[in-house]
Amino acid sequence: MNGAQALIRTLVQAGVDVCFMNPGTSEMHFVAALDDVPEMRGVLALFEGVATGAADGYARIANKPASVLLHLGPGLGNGLANLHNARKGHVPVVNIVGDHATYHKQYDAQLESDIETVARNVSTWIRTSNKTDELAADAAEAVAVAAGPPAQVATHILPADVSWTEGAEPASPHATLTPEAVDADLVARLATILTGDEPAALFVGGRACRADALVQASRITNTTGTKLLAETFPTRVERGAGRVPVERLAYLAEFATMQLDGLKHLILVDSKSPVSFFAYPGKASDLVPEGCTVHTLAGPAGDPLAALTALAEAVGAEAGSETIQPVSLPDLPTGDLSADAVCRTIGALLPEGAIVSDEGNTSGLFAAGHTAGSPAHDWMCLTGGAIGQGLPVALGAAVAAPDRKVIALQADGAAMYTLQSWWTMARENLDVVTVIFNNSSYAVLNMELNRVGATAGGPKAKEMLDIGSPNLDFVALARGMGVSATRATTAEEFNDQFAAAVSQRGPVVIEAVVPSIL
Amino acid sequence: MNGAQALIRTLVQAGVDVCFMNPGTSEMHFVAALDDVPEMRGVLALFEGVATGAADGYARIANKPASVLLHLGPGLGNGLANLHNARKGHVPVVNIVGDHATYHKQYDAQLESDIETVARNVSTWIRTSNKTDELAADAAEAVAVAAGPPAQVATHILPADVSWTEGAEPASPHATLTPEAVDADLVARLATILTGDEPAALFVGGRACRADALVQASRITNTTGTKLLAETFPTRVERGAGRVPVERLAYLAEFATMQLDGLKHLILVDSKSPVSFFAYPGKASDLVPEGCTVHTLAGPAGDPLAALTALAEAVGAEAGSETIQPVSLPDLPTGDLSADAVCRTIGALLPEGAIVSDEGNTSGLFAAGHTAGSPAHDWMCLTGGAIGQGLPVALGAAVAAPDRKVIALQADGAAMYTLQSWWTMARENLDVVTVIFNNSSYAVLNMELNRVGATAGGPKAKEMLDIGSPNLDFVALARGMGVSATRATTAEEFNDQFAAAVSQRGPVVIEAVVPSIL
Repeated sequence: MNGAQALIRTLVQAGVDVCFMNPGTSEMHFVAALDDVPEMRGVLALFEGVATGAADGYARIANKPASVLLHLGPGLGNGLANLHNARKGHVPVVNIVGDHATYHKQYDAQLESDIETVARNVSTWIRTSNKTDELAADAAEAVAVAAGPPAQVATHILPADVSWTEGAEPASPHATLTPEAVDADLVARLATILTGDEPAALFVGGRACRADALVQASRITNTTGTKLLAETFPTRVERGAGRVPVERLAYLAEFATMQLDGLKHLILVDSKSPVSFFAYPGKASDLVPEGCTVHTLAGPAGDPLAALTALAEAVGAEAGSETIQPVSLPDLPTGDLSADAVCRTIGALLPEGAIVSDEGNTSGLFAAGHTAGSPAHDWMCLTGGAIGQGLPVALGAAVAAPDRKVIALQADGAAMYTLQSWWTMARENLDVVTVIFNNSSYAVLNMELNRVGATAGGPKAKEMLDIGSPNLDFVALARGMGVSATRATTAEEFNDQFAAAVSQRGPVVIEAVVPSIL
Repeated sequence: MNGAQALIRTLVQAGVDVCFMNPGTSEMHFVAALDDVPEMRGVLALFEGVATGAADGYARIANKPASVLLHLGPGLGNGLANLHNARKGHVPVVNIVGDHATYHKQYDAQLESDIETVARNVSTWIRTSNKTDELAADAAEAVAVAAGPPAQVATHILPADVSWTEGAEPASPHATLTPEAVDADLVARLATILTGDEPAALFVGGRACRADALVQASRITNTTGTKLLAETFPTRVERGAGRVPVERLAYLAEFATMQLDGLKHLILVDSKSPVSFFAYPGKASDLVPEGCTVHTLAGPAGDPLAALTALAEAVGAEAGSETIQPVSLPDLPTGDLSADAVCRTIGALLPEGAIVSDEGNTSGLFAAGHTAGSPAHDWMCLTGGAIGQGLPVALGAAVAAPDRKVIALQADGAAMYTLQSWWTMARENLDVVTVIFNNSSYAVLNMELNRVGATAGGPKAKEMLDIGSPNLDFVALARGMGVSATRATTAEEFNDQFAAAVSQRGPVVIEAVVPSIL
């Protein structure tokens, strides 16, 4: 058995049985070994950012990592933005980067570069396996470290000769890492605070946005009369009718400040202390109000569900005291199509168990509101701010949950970073409906140009934010990649097209032509 | 004047008057400042790899750097592959990466990451300007360092507040860096070798592939009865009828070894000692024959033209002794379309002064041969092996030389990495004809799968190299980005479509449906 075969068997034994890949020559033995290990599914992407984003989306839904196979430093570069998003969302990814043969590196061949230096941007665990008989053990460690807690991007660098050399054996999976124990003293202190007189809020993120954790959080805040807030861009929120609703902190610091106003205690549960997304001249970066103390109940290395359960008990919260979202569907819109109308339709027709990948940016602003009372579903956000995540994450989610409908809410500008996702959706016949909001603009930047005080922005500046010249024809682009597509210019057209899309299986693109909301 | 305004004025004063950009919020003041400095042309790309590759293509033709504007670490990641290619080709790029405001970095906001660690993959000169009054001086230094010699990618990191703060002044351009002096003793020694009995070759690359340098090189090798060879993937070769022809070292090590066989001396002129592109089990990485001594006449920091001129004089080469390529045009092909037929047509119809961006990969194998006697033109190769360079480099070349026809020879798989280039070509009405070789395959990998000895490659492995399921419709993809496009399935159709494309101005895509050559 060669190194590649042992590596793939090790991954499969550890539960990692999908590999999103864009391989090159140095990874050919890994590719060849796919035929030796039938349990490993290889999913080809035409661009590395699709592969890394898909691994992120897969792990968010599967609750375990996928692997990614990339081609040397440039391949890692192409995949870096979505690994950044995974890192920021604490999503596990086993990131395998092929390298030249160990003895070939000294010659500085064309594709030679320092891979580890790039990987440091997204990984604290980086391992170059220089010996075939160490490769499988390194892979087993990579899976365990990636899975966490804390979940993370583990980068495993795989020289070609280490892959092709014979004499390897698979390694056994590591035991799952143990989360940090819940601190009983801390729980008691926080219970005192929550049951006291000072305004306090639970600020949930990461795994604390799953349904079971939100039940505990809602019991706590309902029992103590405190506030429940979620981070702005959670990795995955389980929401909708029959679940606990949670208000997310606004993207715009001006609104976020109002949500946090007057708090004396902010209790983080798998979230980080709220800060402004960007800096703006004369505005604060830190959104925590003056005089408010920040506490951490559980971090990415902890067990937020156990911690919330302990805290609920400590404050005397009873079963059934949680808030439950009732069914509430918007009416189907009529007339002119707008971002708001699109989101209403989605809210009205969202299937039970749907998974929404939200990179609607400005156009998607109304989506969360209009789907709040739709049947139970998952909502996944742009965790690291690096655009081009929405379509790959939808792709990966569809691989993880073939029986669930995936909806990608996708802004036009952001779609263009990883549009190649559609080809893989077609190839794998994945059940993803992409709704493209085509407003012909980097609309968020038009807003930001004003917010940063760049008032001198004249015609040349405005031109850099205008992506409508020429207009992008997403119907043609989708068909070019083998995905059937339609265009909607009225609410009625969109209603019909979206209803048809959710009633069938397989990838569909709907281009919604809408004015910018700004 | 704020930092951004001073920065842009500094760039313009130093001759850098084009910026290929994909900005975000942290770069809004740079964008706004474009209206204050009319000499700076902003060219918007929908993806960072387009912007960085365009800067590479621009510099190859303009002989001076363009600037690039990217958005934080993820933006740099997306642009990294084509910066890698620029680095390997010794092409100057002023790589400006926006960052969070200096005081905002401590908050680890969503887009926060370590930019410098990523930049180290492509730049030895990396500068974060932390003060507005140092920004312009840093920019002037960046331009000088980028221009070289040696030319390189200089990465200048620009925090948002440094950009927006008032009180900056433009900085004066630096003097051009002086190349390493020609070593007269070395020239004399090499002249003795070349005029001696042992088989020797000049191995030219980089700036030694320009017409004037090749004239000197040809005089030397003709006078001394030695061999003239060029590196496999030169940055820019000036070639065609009326110029000095030069044989390039083959990509396949098996053939390259035959070209180098028997040499006792290999003299590098702005090239590096030949090595195998990848390592293959049981095959040598170093292609220099046993017993052959490698000498360096001039490196990237030197002056190859001056060195060759001195060497020509030292060996007594006379003016007029160089080989000149006569006009020789292939016949227009008929019948079935093939990669060979496409290349024949291009050779027959290539306009005088054309610029060819060659990322045809396997399908482009015949292109150099069939265009050898076409009217004088420039030929630009994939310098660093990171695919997705061809279209952006064509884009940048067209910006640099608006009066010349640019031809992009583009493999299908590689096209998909930076296809967004077409949108910018349409937007700027650039005079680029893209010829897509659609063979529905990562054909080079099918070959490499066998070459690396990965003989176990079964159906799953083969599937990872097949990009024909679903088939990519490049006509639809081009039209989706505003570029007119046609498809050719016979030689006659291709002849007509290519003839029409070169006789008009503006971007055109021709999808040539061809079988894989392998």
